[in-house]
Amino acid sequence: MKKISLLGSTGSIGTQTLDVIAANNESFTLVALACGTNIELARKQIAAFQPKLVSVATPEDAKILAGEFGPEIEFLHGGEGLVEVARYSEADTTVTAITGSVGLLPTLAAIEAKKTIAIANKETLVTAGHIVVEAAKKNRVALIPVDSEHSAIFQALNGESHRAIERLIITASGGSFRDRSRDELKHVTVEQALSHPNWSMGAKITIDSATMMNKGLEVIEAKWLFGLDYDKIDVLIHKESIIHSMVEFVDRSVIAQLGTPDMRVPIQYALTYPERFSRLDEERLDLAAIGKLHFSEMDMSRYRCMKFAYDAGRAGGTMPTVLNAANEVAVARFLKGELTFLEIEDVIERALQAHTIQSNPTLEQIQAVDQEIRQQVSVS
Amino acid sequence: MKKISLLGSTGSIGTQTLDVIAANNESFTLVALACGTNIELARKQIAAFQPKLVSVATPEDAKILAGEFGPEIEFLHGGEGLVEVARYSEADTTVTAITGSVGLLPTLAAIEAKKTIAIANKETLVTAGHIVVEAAKKNRVALIPVDSEHSAIFQALNGESHRAIERLIITASGGSFRDRSRDELKHVTVEQALSHPNWSMGAKITIDSATMMNKGLEVIEAKWLFGLDYDKIDVLIHKESIIHSMVEFVDRSVIAQLGTPDMRVPIQYALTYPERFSRLDEERLDLAAIGKLHFSEMDMSRYRCMKFAYDAGRAGGTMPTVLNAANEVAVARFLKGELTFLEIEDVIERALQAHTIQSNPTLEQIQAVDQEIRQQVSVS
Repeated sequence: MKKISLLGSTGSIGTQTLDVIAANNESFTLVALACGTNIELARKQIAAFQPKLVSVATPEDAKILAGEFGPEIEFLHGGEGLVEVARYSEADTTVTAITGSVGLLPTLAAIEAKKTIAIANKETLVTAGHIVVEAAKKNRVALIPVDSEHSAIFQALNGESHRAIERLIITASGGSFRDRSRDELKHVTVEQALSHPNWSMGAKITIDSATMMNKGLEVIEAKWLFGLDYDKIDVLIHKESIIHSMVEFVDRSVIAQLGTPDMRVPIQYALTYPERFSRLDEERLDLAAIGKLHFSEMDMSRYRCMKFAYDAGRAGGTMPTVLNAANEVAVARFLKGELTFLEIEDVIERALQAHTIQSNPTLEQIQAVDQEIRQQVSVS
Repeated sequence: MKKISLLGSTGSIGTQTLDVIAANNESFTLVALACGTNIELARKQIAAFQPKLVSVATPEDAKILAGEFGPEIEFLHGGEGLVEVARYSEADTTVTAITGSVGLLPTLAAIEAKKTIAIANKETLVTAGHIVVEAAKKNRVALIPVDSEHSAIFQALNGESHRAIERLIITASGGSFRDRSRDELKHVTVEQALSHPNWSMGAKITIDSATMMNKGLEVIEAKWLFGLDYDKIDVLIHKESIIHSMVEFVDRSVIAQLGTPDMRVPIQYALTYPERFSRLDEERLDLAAIGKLHFSEMDMSRYRCMKFAYDAGRAGGTMPTVLNAANEVAVARFLKGELTFLEIEDVIERALQAHTIQSNPTLEQIQAVDQEIRQQVSVS
C-alpha cells in the first residue's frame, strides 16, 4: 500500500489525484491532504478518504473542521500546515498539486523528509529549479512529473540513456486564442481566455495556456527535470493535444507518448511508476476517429511569453523567479479585471527588464526577489 | 567491435545495412555475406568490406569471384552456402535481409550457433514462427526486429513490462494503390504497383504493400516477436508513414516511435541496441514542415489480404505457411505478367481454402507444405 500526501486537494489535479486513489484503493491510500478555502469540497474529501492530517488556509476553517471530525484527524492551517502535510511522516509519496511558487517550501520539506515527489507544481521548479534538483539529488529522492508533457517525456525516456537524448519536443495546443491574431487579442475577455479547447484545468494554468506562458514554464520545468540545456528543448504547436510530447534521440528516432486529454493518465503513472495499472474501463485513444493531427512552428513574436521564458531561463539566476512571480501576479490581476490580456505580457516584460540578476541565488534570495516582484507588479 | 554476418547483401535492406556498417566502422565489421545473382554489386561490396566468407547463388559465380579475390576469402554457393554464412563462427550478429521463406533454414542455423538475430526476413516468422521463437528461447538468442514497424514497437517497449501491453497498433501507409477503389485495381500495371508513395524497397515487399499482404505478414511477425494474441494486434492506416507503429498500454497511455522513412534508423538500432549511435548528420524529422498526419480505419473488405492474414494467423498450424508460400509465388507471377493484380488475392484465397490444416507442424511438415503450395500455385 502506497501512502500518499496530497497538496492542493480541491484543485483540478488534486481532485483527479483523489479519483486515481479511489480507483486503486487496494494500492493507494491518502494519509494527508492540504487545501485552501474550498471547505465544502474539503469536507467531502476528508469524509471519503479519512486522512490522518489535514491543513487548510485559515485557523477558523481548521477549527470548524476539527469540531466536525473529532480527534482522529489532526487539523493544521496556513503555510506551516502545508509544510507539515508535505513532510507527513507516514507518507511515501507527496503529490504537489498546488499552483504557484507557494509550493516551494513544502516541496523542499517533502524532499528533505525523503518522500517521492509527484510534481504537479511547475512554478516551484521555475522559481528555484537548481535548489529543488540539488535537494532531490542529495536526498536521493525521485521527482516524477505529473504535467502531461513532462510525463510524456518521462515515459518516452523509459529504458533510454540520458546521453542518447538529442532534444525534447514539447507540444503546445496553442490555448484558447490559438486562432486569433495579436490584434484580435486586444479586447478578449476573461471568460474567453478561460475556455481552453482541449483540457479542463484550473484558472491560472488556463490563462497561462492562452498567453503561452504555461509552455514557457514547462520548458524551464523540463530543463530541471531532465537536466538539459535550453538549446535541446523545443516547442511545437499541435492543436489536438494528442501527442503529449516527444523525445528525439541522437539516432534521429523519435519516441512520443499519446493519449486522450485525460490528466488521470499521467497522475496515475506518477503514482504507479515503473508499473502501469489498468485503466481499461476508460476511453481508448482512437486515432482513426480523430482523423488528423496538426503540427506547426512555435511563433515567438505571436507568443511573447514563450520568448520571455526562454530568455529568462537562459539568463538563469533569479531571472526565472522574476518571470514566475510577475506572471503569477499579472494573471491574478487579469482575472480580477485589473489588466487586459495583452497587458499581462507588458507587465512581465517590464519586471524582467528592470531586474538586476543575481547568479546562483540562495533560497532566501529567491524568496526576497519573489516578494519584491510581487509587490512591484501588483501596482505597476 | 561487433562482427556481422549479412544475408541478402545486395537487396534494399542489405545495401542499407552496409551503409550503417560503413558509417560506424569503429564499432561494426562485416565478416561474412551472402547474396544471389547480382555479382556486379557483390564484387564491389566484397572489395569494400573484405568479408572472410561469401556465398552466392551459383557455383559458377562462386568460382569466378574466388578467382578474382584469391584465397583470403572463402567462397560458397547455394542453400548450403547461405547456411554457412548465417552461422559463421566469427560473427556475433546475423542480419537476415533476404526475402521469402528461403530464410528459414539459415535463420535457424544462426540461432543454433547462438548469433544475435537482426531479423529483416518476416516470411521466416510467418511460415514457421513457433519453431523460430522456440529455438531462439532455447538458445537464449535475441530476435531484434529490423522492419520499421516492429522496430518501432520494440523501441516503444523499452523499459516496459510485457503484462502492461494492451495492444500493438501497426501503422500501414496503404501502399501504391491506397486511393484506388477495388474496381480501379482491375487493370493496374506492375509498374504502377511498384511505385510506393513513401518507401523505396525491393519488388516483393512493394507489391505486398500494394495488396496489404505486407501488413498481414507483419501482424503475424508481431504475434511471434512480441508474444501476443491476434486480438491484441491492430492495424491503422496512416498514409504518411511517420508514426512507424505504437503500443497501447493497460493504462491507456500510447507510446509511438516516429521518424523520416529511412530504414537505416531501424537497421542501425537493431545493431546498436540497447544503445543508440549518432545519426545527427542525417535529416531530422520536421513535423511542422509535414503539417498533418492522417489516420483511418483498416478496411478488411478493401484489403482482402489483410483478412486472409488474420484468418490464417488465427487458424495457426500450417495455415500461415500456406498464406506465405501462395503469396510468394503469386507475387512472382504478377511481376512476370502471369497474373493480374487482383488475381494475387484469388490465388491465395484458393490455396488457403483448399488446405487441410496440420496443427503444431514440425520443420519437415512446414517444408513439405511450403513446397506443395508453391507447385500448386505456380500453375493455378
